[in-house]
Amino acid sequence: MLTYPMEERGGLPLYEYLYRRIRADILSGALAAGERLPSKRALAEHLHLSVITVEGAYQQLEAEGYVYTRPKRGFFVSSIERAPEAEAPPPPLPAQAAPHWRLDLKSNQVDTGRFPVSTWSRLTRQVLSEGGQALLHPVPHQGLPALRQAIADDLRDYKGMSVSPAQIVVGAGAEYLYLLLAQLLGPDAVFAVEDPGYPKIRQVYGKCGARCCPVPLDRQGLDPAALHASGASVAHLSPSHHYPTGLVTPIGRRQELLRWAGEQSAFIIEDDYDSEFRFSGRPIPTLQSIDRGGRVIYMNTFSQTISPSMRVGFMVLPPRLLARYRRELDFYACTVPALEQHVLARFLAGGYYEQHLARMRKEYRLRRDRVLDAFRASPFAGRISISEQGAGLHFLLRLDTPLSDEALGRRAEALGVRLGFLSEYAAVPNPAHAHTLVVNYAGLDAERLPEAMALLAAVF
Amino acid sequence: MLTYPMEERGGLPLYEYLYRRIRADILSGALAAGERLPSKRALAEHLHLSVITVEGAYQQLEAEGYVYTRPKRGFFVSSIERAPEAEAPPPPLPAQAAPHWRLDLKSNQVDTGRFPVSTWSRLTRQVLSEGGQALLHPVPHQGLPALRQAIADDLRDYKGMSVSPAQIVVGAGAEYLYLLLAQLLGPDAVFAVEDPGYPKIRQVYGKCGARCCPVPLDRQGLDPAALHASGASVAHLSPSHHYPTGLVTPIGRRQELLRWAGEQSAFIIEDDYDSEFRFSGRPIPTLQSIDRGGRVIYMNTFSQTISPSMRVGFMVLPPRLLARYRRELDFYACTVPALEQHVLARFLAGGYYEQHLARMRKEYRLRRDRVLDAFRASPFAGRISISEQGAGLHFLLRLDTPLSDEALGRRAEALGVRLGFLSEYAAVPNPAHAHTLVVNYAGLDAERLPEAMALLAAVF
Repeated sequence: MLTYPMEERGGLPLYEYLYRRIRADILSGALAAGERLPSKRALAEHLHLSVITVEGAYQQLEAEGYVYTRPKRGFFVSSIERAPEAEAPPPPLPAQAAPHWRLDLKSNQVDTGRFPVSTWSRLTRQVLSEGGQALLHPVPHQGLPALRQAIADDLRDYKGMSVSPAQIVVGAGAEYLYLLLAQLLGPDAVFAVEDPGYPKIRQVYGKCGARCCPVPLDRQGLDPAALHASGASVAHLSPSHHYPTGLVTPIGRRQELLRWAGEQSAFIIEDDYDSEFRFSGRPIPTLQSIDRGGRVIYMNTFSQTISPSMRVGFMVLPPRLLARYRRELDFYACTVPALEQHVLARFLAGGYYEQHLARMRKEYRLRRDRVLDAFRASPFAGRISISEQGAGLHFLLRLDTPLSDEALGRRAEALGVRLGFLSEYAAVPNPAHAHTLVVNYAGLDAERLPEAMALLAAVF
Repeated sequence: MLTYPMEERGGLPLYEYLYRRIRADILSGALAAGERLPSKRALAEHLHLSVITVEGAYQQLEAEGYVYTRPKRGFFVSSIERAPEAEAPPPPLPAQAAPHWRLDLKSNQVDTGRFPVSTWSRLTRQVLSEGGQALLHPVPHQGLPALRQAIADDLRDYKGMSVSPAQIVVGAGAEYLYLLLAQLLGPDAVFAVEDPGYPKIRQVYGKCGARCCPVPLDRQGLDPAALHASGASVAHLSPSHHYPTGLVTPIGRRQELLRWAGEQSAFIIEDDYDSEFRFSGRPIPTLQSIDRGGRVIYMNTFSQTISPSMRVGFMVLPPRLLARYRRELDFYACTVPALEQHVLARFLAGGYYEQHLARMRKEYRLRRDRVLDAFRASPFAGRISISEQGAGLHFLLRLDTPLSDEALGRRAEALGVRLGFLSEYAAVPNPAHAHTLVVNYAGLDAERLPEAMALLAAVF
C-alpha cells in the first residue's frame, strides 16, 4: 500500500500533497504503468485521511493524465514518458539597459513635461466614476463611436477635412495601423516609400512581406516620374511635413500625386505624423481634403502630440477601402483599451487637445529659436548650414567636415553624444545626404544648451 | 489691384480671409499663372489693412505653393492644376449596428458585471496621482518592467512556471501577439493549427501571409502522426483547454508533442486562453513548464479574465527566440498604454487578479450547474447529449436532429436565437462535427434560463 509521510506536507493542502507524492512516484517509475492504485476508501483508511481528500488527489491525477479509470475497477497508472534529463534552460538574456547619453540629438523625444496631466487625470476619474461597467464592454472594432466623432470634429475644425466617423479606424499607434494597411491592401501591393524617409515604415511593410520601393524626393516631395517608373500601387507619403527633411509638398505637386493615384487606380497613404507642430500660418490642406477620387488614406497618431506612452493612432479610409476593411479585417478586435478611448474622446471634445497643441507650438517655437541662436553663436557656426522649414521638432544641419558620417558618429559616441544622420534615413545611399545631421531638438531645453554646444564643438 | 470685401469675412481673422480670397482667385483662374501680386505695402494701403496682415496671407499662400517669390521682385502666382470637377465622394458606409438577439449562445461573452471596477478605479487613481509625469515616458518595447515582474510572479505562484521577466513581451491582446509571432517566426514558417479550432488564429496567420495547415485532433489533443505528416515548423496549441471542444491534453501526449518539437527543431505556441476557468483541482502543468529544450512560446491574455475592452496579452519567449525578437522586432513600440500597464501591474501584485479569478470560477461553476440542470430538465432533454470537461465557459451539445447545421441555424435566427456550431470551427469539413452546438453560457444568468429553454425548445 502507498505510504507517505503526510505530516511533512508543509503548508500544502492534504489532497495536493498526496497528489504530488503519487505523481512523483509515477514519474520516477516507482509506480509502474498499468499498476492499479489502491481504492480511495482503502488508501484513505491507510493514511488516516478522508475519502474526499484521496478523491481530490485521484481526480487531479486523472485530469492531468497520470492515471486513468476503468469502470468498476478503479484507477490505473498511465504509461508516461519519463521527462528527459533536466537540462537547465539557458539563462534568458539580460534586460536591456538603455544607454545613457550626455547629449542625444537623435531620439525623437517629445517634451511631455508640459502635458496637462492634471486635466487628463481629472477626465480619467470622471470616466471611471460615470462609466463604471460600461467601460468593460467590448469596443466596436473600428473604435469607440464617441472617439471617432471627436476625431472627425477635430479634423473638420482644424484641418478642414470632411470625414464621417464611420470612415475612421482607431488602433494602437501608427505602426499597428501600418500592419493593418499592409493586410488591407493585400500581398500584391507594392509600396512606394519616401527616400530618405522614416525607416520604421519600410521595416513594418517589409516584415509584413510587402514589397517596398524607395522613391527619391526632389525639392517638392516625391518625384512623380520616379513614382510612375516604380510600378507602385500604393504611395506612403508625408506631404505636410516630411521626416526628416521637413519638406512640405506644394499644392501643384499634391495634385500631380492625386492624378497618379487616379490614373493607376493606386492609393496614397497620407501619413500626417508631426504636422501639428507647424509654427506659422494655418495647416496646409491635406491630400485627403482635396482628393475627389477616394484614393487617399489619411492617418495620424497622438503619440507625438500627447505622449509616446499613449498608443493611439487612427486612419480615415476612403469608402471603397472601408467596405473592404469591413469585409476582410473586421475580425480584429480594436487594440486600444476602452478607458483610453473614452478619456481621449473627452480630451478632444473638451478642446483640451487643441489648447495643448497651441501651447506646445509656442513652446517649441521658442525652443527652436533658442537652439538656432545657440548654433549660430557657436564656435563651429562658420562650418554649418541649417535648413529648417518652420515645422516639426527637428532640422537638418549640414556640416563642413572631411570626416565620414560613420567616423563622426563614432567620435561623438566616444564623447557621450548621440547624433542622427540624414544618410541613416536613406534606403539607397546618396552622396548628397552626407555630412547632414538630423537634429531633434524637442528635448533640448535652455539650461542644457551651453553644455550641448560645448560637446558638439568637441565633436566637430 | 485685388479688391475684396473685407467686411464680409465673418469670424475669420483678416489675414485668413485675405488668404482664402486670393487662393480662390488662383484656383478659379481669375489670377493667372505667372501673374505678379501687388506688393504687400500697396495691397495693405488699398484694402486698409496692416502690412503684417497682408504678409501673413502671402506667407500662407507661399507655404502652400499657391505663390512663389522671386528675390527683390515680389510674389508671383504658381502654375496650379485646377481641381477636377468636384465629384462628391461616395457616402461612407453606415455605421454597423450590432444585431439584437433574444438569445445568444454563440458570442464568447464574458460576464463583466462582477469585475471589481471600484478596485481597478482606485488603483488607477493611485497610479495617476503617484505616477504623474512618469506615465508619459515611453514604455520599453517588451512592456513595463513592473508589469512583466508581476506576470512572472503570477505564473510562478499559480501555474508553477519559472519565467524571467526579461522573457516576457506585453502586447495589445492575443491577436496582436499572433501578428508579432508570424513576423518573428518568419515567412517560411508553416503553422499547424488545431482542427477544429479558434478561427481567428487561422485568420490572423493567413492575413500575415503565413501558411497554415489544419491538423485534426484525436481524444487527447493534436494528433502526433498528422502533425509529423503536416511538415509544420510551428504548432499553435491550447493543451490546457482546447477551444471549442474543451479537450485537455494529458501529460503523455504533451511529452510527445515536446519531443516532436525537439526532433524537428520546431516551436510550439502554447495558447493558454481560457485556462483559468477550470472548476476542479489545480491547473494542469503548462507545456512551457515541462519544456527542457526551449521550444515553447507560452501566451495568454487578460481579455477573457478581466474584460474584452482591456487589450493586454503577453507571451513568454524561450531564450533563442528572445534573442531573435530583440534583433529583428525591437523597433516596434509597445502597443499597450503605460497607464493600463501600471494599473494591471498593481492589480496583479496586490492579489486582486487571483481573488477575482477565484470568485469568477465559483460563479461560473454555479452558472454551469444551473445551465446543465436546465438543459437536462428541458422538453428536448432526450434528444441531446452534453460533453463538458469541467473547464472554460462553454460546452458541446450534440443534438439528435434530421436538420443540417445550416438549416438549424437559420431556423434559430428566425426566432432571434444565435447558435454556434462545432462545424464552424473546422478548417476541413468533418461529418463527425455535425449537429453539435458550442454553447457559451457565460452570459446566461439564472433569470434568463426559462426563456432561453423555451426558445431552444421552439428551435429544436
